[in-house]
Amino acid sequence: MLNRVRSAVAHLVSSGGAPPSRPKSPDLPNATSAPPAAPPQAPRSPPARAGSGGATPARTVEARASFSRPTFLQLSPGGLRRADDHAGRAVQSPPDTGRRLPWSTGYAEVINAGKSRHNEDQACCEVVYVEGRRSVSGAPREPSRGQGLCFYYWGLFDGHAGGGAAEMASRLLHRHIREQLKDLVEILQDPLPPPLCLPSTPGAPGSSDSSQLVGPQSCWSSQKEVTHESLVVGAIENAFQLMDEQMARERRGHQVEGGCCALVVVYLLGKVYVANAGDSRAIIVRNGEIIPMSQEFTPETERQRLQLLGFLKPELLGGEFTHLEFPRRVQPKELGQRMLYRDQNMTGWAYKKIELEDLRFPLVCGEGKKARVMATIGVTRGLGDHNLRVCSSTLPIKPFLSCFPEVRVYDLTQYEHCPDDVLVLGTDGLWDVTSDCEVAATVDRVLSAYEPNDPSRYTALAQALVLGARGTPRDRGWRLPNNKLGSGDDISVFVIPLGGPGSYS
Amino acid sequence: MLNRVRSAVAHLVSSGGAPPSRPKSPDLPNATSAPPAAPPQAPRSPPARAGSGGATPARTVEARASFSRPTFLQLSPGGLRRADDHAGRAVQSPPDTGRRLPWSTGYAEVINAGKSRHNEDQACCEVVYVEGRRSVSGAPREPSRGQGLCFYYWGLFDGHAGGGAAEMASRLLHRHIREQLKDLVEILQDPLPPPLCLPSTPGAPGSSDSSQLVGPQSCWSSQKEVTHESLVVGAIENAFQLMDEQMARERRGHQVEGGCCALVVVYLLGKVYVANAGDSRAIIVRNGEIIPMSQEFTPETERQRLQLLGFLKPELLGGEFTHLEFPRRVQPKELGQRMLYRDQNMTGWAYKKIELEDLRFPLVCGEGKKARVMATIGVTRGLGDHNLRVCSSTLPIKPFLSCFPEVRVYDLTQYEHCPDDVLVLGTDGLWDVTSDCEVAATVDRVLSAYEPNDPSRYTALAQALVLGARGTPRDRGWRLPNNKLGSGDDISVFVIPLGGPGSYS
Repeated sequence: MLNRVRSAVAHLVSSGGAPPSRPKSPDLPNATSAPPAAPPQAPRSPPARAGSGGATPARTVEARASFSRPTFLQLSPGGLRRADDHAGRAVQSPPDTGRRLPWSTGYAEVINAGKSRHNEDQACCEVVYVEGRRSVSGAPREPSRGQGLCFYYWGLFDGHAGGGAAEMASRLLHRHIREQLKDLVEILQDPLPPPLCLPSTPGAPGSSDSSQLVGPQSCWSSQKEVTHESLVVGAIENAFQLMDEQMARERRGHQVEGGCCALVVVYLLGKVYVANAGDSRAIIVRNGEIIPMSQEFTPETERQRLQLLGFLKPELLGGEFTHLEFPRRVQPKELGQRMLYRDQNMTGWAYKKIELEDLRFPLVCGEGKKARVMATIGVTRGLGDHNLRVCSSTLPIKPFLSCFPEVRVYDLTQYEHCPDDVLVLGTDGLWDVTSDCEVAATVDRVLSAYEPNDPSRYTALAQALVLGARGTPRDRGWRLPNNKLGSGDDISVFVIPLGGPGSYS
Repeated sequence: MLNRVRSAVAHLVSSGGAPPSRPKSPDLPNATSAPPAAPPQAPRSPPARAGSGGATPARTVEARASFSRPTFLQLSPGGLRRADDHAGRAVQSPPDTGRRLPWSTGYAEVINAGKSRHNEDQACCEVVYVEGRRSVSGAPREPSRGQGLCFYYWGLFDGHAGGGAAEMASRLLHRHIREQLKDLVEILQDPLPPPLCLPSTPGAPGSSDSSQLVGPQSCWSSQKEVTHESLVVGAIENAFQLMDEQMARERRGHQVEGGCCALVVVYLLGKVYVANAGDSRAIIVRNGEIIPMSQEFTPETERQRLQLLGFLKPELLGGEFTHLEFPRRVQPKELGQRMLYRDQNMTGWAYKKIELEDLRFPLVCGEGKKARVMATIGVTRGLGDHNLRVCSSTLPIKPFLSCFPEVRVYDLTQYEHCPDDVLVLGTDGLWDVTSDCEVAATVDRVLSAYEPNDPSRYTALAQALVLGARGTPRDRGWRLPNNKLGSGDDISVFVIPLGGPGSYS
């Protein structure tokens, strides 16, 4: 398995090149469009045949823009057609025969009820081997010096306005993470704290002289301790940004349509890193207890960040929007009256006199699933969306979106996990109609019906969660047992048993 | 008591004028210095004799810049000298004879060990009556229509770089809150949801015609529900900003020196609002359980906000600072090497190649109590600091500071409180050397030694907390029983029993 991933991955993202040396650009259009100083040497035109990551292999560039499902589903052409059927909405899982997913991970998905032409969710589950790029001293790495690193990887990508961004992210994001980790291979395996400063250029004069190394004890009396864990967090954060920048570069040539939310799990050296950018969600269910492992990023949860940016950079509002929030649209006849409002500094509401510029459309409006940035998009973090503009306007929305995930860390070694302890990842199709508690109840109900050592139990659980959110066709709609509407969205679920690598078959 | 407060408060901040009609300006210098469209008509030259709020009454403008302690301490000239004695550091509390503080609130304070000339903490404890300014319809209010509102108020103000800002805030902040609440008197007492829109000008044509009222049900299908609670939060938030703007206006005329952290509690209509801007802290100890009611705002906790502002407005860094964070100061000889860094988007760390501009001083540096913005200030929210500049530079620091509090709400009616349940407020002098758990243990130890109906028990508790943080003089310093150093800072503590208004004597 390791070899398969190692060789399949090796060619897509080149292992050469220095790590990015510039400060991270924010999500501003001019910064985004500036040529990166030293991008990872990811191919501008990846060979289509190498796309083994999370999507259908062996297809042409043209085909990539069309329908594809994760490779690990091993769908035949007929199966692919069934997976694409909005009427039947058959739940898809990896076949019970053949190779299981790493860690006996369970997976299930279902297409939407007609919301978009194809299923715009994508998924990826891989074991990724990271070979060190060079030694800590900057010298080219001797093959004999220590081992590389291996990380386990799961990703859910919920696309919008097309499936291209989700498909691309499912193929490439873990490779960006691998790129970021390449320089950390030795450092992460060294029990000493990470060196604060390293010589830069491999092979440069004196670079193999370890006396140049600036250890954590030297230079200044006041210095922060940086943990190994925070290096992995930084690597994941930067990988998200580089993925987003790659989408910006390649959007024209390869039809990277729309954007996608990204929810990613990395297991490395005993710790689980959950990185989320968007409105997917991850929870751990441990001994019946719910441990939230992500938060959603929406116009409501990120209102103040959006408003602050609109306030500090009013040119981004193009004279069409106001950064103030009102509880409803202001009417021209209300000019001079006093209406409730909130600005970037407020969590409460107050009354203000309505002035002419308050009649502009609010940057953030609506509630819950109907909340929107610039009346257009309902998620505020994710990858892609470089072409997204306000409807009937040229105003770009991307500056308000962030490609950075929030990363939470869970230390697997701090707790003895039983076979019923799981990490559940789901796109919003699951969570729109299923509460954390309902998921925990399903975990308990389904897993207790299987033997603890039955590896198919996690797929059964993922299927039960997808079915429970989809419902059954009744009364001209998909309905749940309580007769409420099921989710008409794409639904994708990973169930990762926390028993650990031991259960990996 | 109500009448005393009503009359004492009535004259300082005029009750006339419309509420501020402009969007809130952020903490940027040009916005701060712009003339406010409709500031509350607080006096530019408050008569010195009216200063009854939280500081010594009957003193001249010149005297105000000198030493004063809260009026409720009822200090004689001799007592004031003892309270000002850095060597003795006698703990001060309101006298056991005479009027108690509202709700039998306990209070104690002690001066620092020589850190500054005087005690730069200030405190205020008041009952404030709010008379409605006008009816909801905009018509001048008929005296017969309903009652005004009464709120209980506690404030701790921890000054820095002089005592002027803390002294001014202790006298005036609750009056700004009262001003903000004046238009809400009827609305807050009406069980219906607040109207989203109100006619503006009292007495304007048609303004008393209630058909002009835009109720929560009309206009647009999508509208947010705004709670009464969020109106109070908004009122407190805006009061902080208006207090800060008043300090900016009056800084020259009245020697508003330095700035201050502000931790404020408002009890209104069954709910406790805890507003914090700075590094003071509030916790509830309820049946032994600790409920945090604030978070601290420091260069470390607000790093990303500060870095984002420096990134979006690089002119605020004046070419002297970099918005990037490094774990220690970068050395010129390290140019071209790779050092760990974090930017405004990252919580983790990564390596970057050191470039020339990275040799600038970092906007945020240091750890814990030594963390600083622009190498100058260790708190990032509060009031005042309008004159604060980077040492040996003209670069203003105020743009990076926020005057806005975080407001948390605790519903007193949701729980049956016993006499040992308390809300503890303390300046950082307490919390620097005392954990939440230690405070909870002291609460238990002291209160159990007093009868539940003994009103002096809360003052005894406040004294015990201050004494426990100050320590006793030993080995050339103030030391705690475990021989660690006690706090050499000013220490101020309120203990508010949650038994509620019933215990107010």
